[in-house]
Amino acid sequence: MKRNYKFLISYDGTRYHGWERQPGKDMTIQGKLETVLGKMTGAPSDDPVNLIGAGRTDAGVHARAMTANAFLDTDMSEDEIRSYMNQYLPEDISVMEVRACSERFHARYNALGKTYRYTCWIGPSKPVFDRKYVTILENRPDVEAMKEAAQLLVGTHDFKSFCGNTRMKKSTVRCVDTINIEENGNYLRLYFHGNGFLQNMVRILTGTLLEVGYGNISPVQVKEILEACDRQKAGPTAPPQGLCMMKVDY
Amino acid sequence: MKRNYKFLISYDGTRYHGWERQPGKDMTIQGKLETVLGKMTGAPSDDPVNLIGAGRTDAGVHARAMTANAFLDTDMSEDEIRSYMNQYLPEDISVMEVRACSERFHARYNALGKTYRYTCWIGPSKPVFDRKYVTILENRPDVEAMKEAAQLLVGTHDFKSFCGNTRMKKSTVRCVDTINIEENGNYLRLYFHGNGFLQNMVRILTGTLLEVGYGNISPVQVKEILEACDRQKAGPTAPPQGLCMMKVDY
Repeated sequence: MKRNYKFLISYDGTRYHGWERQPGKDMTIQGKLETVLGKMTGAPSDDPVNLIGAGRTDAGVHARAMTANAFLDTDMSEDEIRSYMNQYLPEDISVMEVRACSERFHARYNALGKTYRYTCWIGPSKPVFDRKYVTILENRPDVEAMKEAAQLLVGTHDFKSFCGNTRMKKSTVRCVDTINIEENGNYLRLYFHGNGFLQNMVRILTGTLLEVGYGNISPVQVKEILEACDRQKAGPTAPPQGLCMMKVDY
Repeated sequence: MKRNYKFLISYDGTRYHGWERQPGKDMTIQGKLETVLGKMTGAPSDDPVNLIGAGRTDAGVHARAMTANAFLDTDMSEDEIRSYMNQYLPEDISVMEVRACSERFHARYNALGKTYRYTCWIGPSKPVFDRKYVTILENRPDVEAMKEAAQLLVGTHDFKSFCGNTRMKKSTVRCVDTINIEENGNYLRLYFHGNGFLQNMVRILTGTLLEVGYGNISPVQVKEILEACDRQKAGPTAPPQGLCMMKVDY
């Protein structure tokens, strides 16, 4: 009999075409995880394991604690499942926790909030040990201006200007509770918390805030960008490697 | 006219055959740095740039702040030298600082002390973001026993039992001031400070302390191992990827 299991997963997205399984693409996080779970449970090909992630990270984006769930037919204990998965997964995907959960738990629909972090490195030297997890900025942006603009983006808004999918038909209204910008040595980190994020939204918000930081957009202009509901008005999509999904709230 | 320059360098040693330039081996840290400095200064082939490192790290070992010096004939400023080097070096080698220094400064002979760190990860899940910089331990060792044994290794001793070069002809006496072992979450970090270390010495000390941690060697036995002056008596050489040179004192 199948039971529902909840997973906490971390991954280095560098080598992958993102979270979502895609036909003909071997290198997806969901695909790698489902393959291992399928082998583990011997799931038949007409009823393969379906792993539901809280969100779909883009190609090259990382996660420290993606939450996912799947119904599995297995006699293994939670710890045995975790050990099996960590043994057969590639070294850039790791399962931190496996828990049997209510059959009603759905990693995407039940997610109440998500935290993303975008990490920049500022300076003339290069950060060799986390070079794959940061975006390098040649010059220091005006962080105070970025913080001012960030406060204007916080709240419940139509974020259509910050949506990478310009043909999005569903609602583009989201609530972003907080945007915290922290500078620590050579690191500039932007933390975003909200009830949900549109495609590329965190990267476009970051790209726009960096434009503010470099004086190409004034802080108050971000209000006009929001109101325009036009992707063309916002800044560029910041590169994927600086982005990391940190936590999903339930 | 040539001037002496001091460099602070960090590198991810994963892809390299160690610090030292070797004939026929393209992938060495010293070799990569000398090639860039040679191009930068246009040094003639009969008088190539000779970069002197404070120490010679093994293949696969990392550094956060290796110190080195070289005599260069250049009109560039210190910052221009650093920028040039960071532009042309591979992304896993970074120059943090360049300073003109006394012509009498020698990175190896003037080094008074060195700090190395050995990092282990304990646990059933895998550390995806620093997987290349840790050694994974399946089970938690007895850290208190390791600390007890470490105190018996501290001091001025003949460390011949802990020297990877069994044909070493020079003195194998070294002074290790401190060995600090710190546990923090899933990380177990061993910090070694001393006036100098023999070939593979930090890795053999770590391998021996881990044997103590797993109960295969009793803490007091490390005194016998020291006194034996026999590499065969000590524990195995711990893998290179957990090791990092942290700092050189002058």
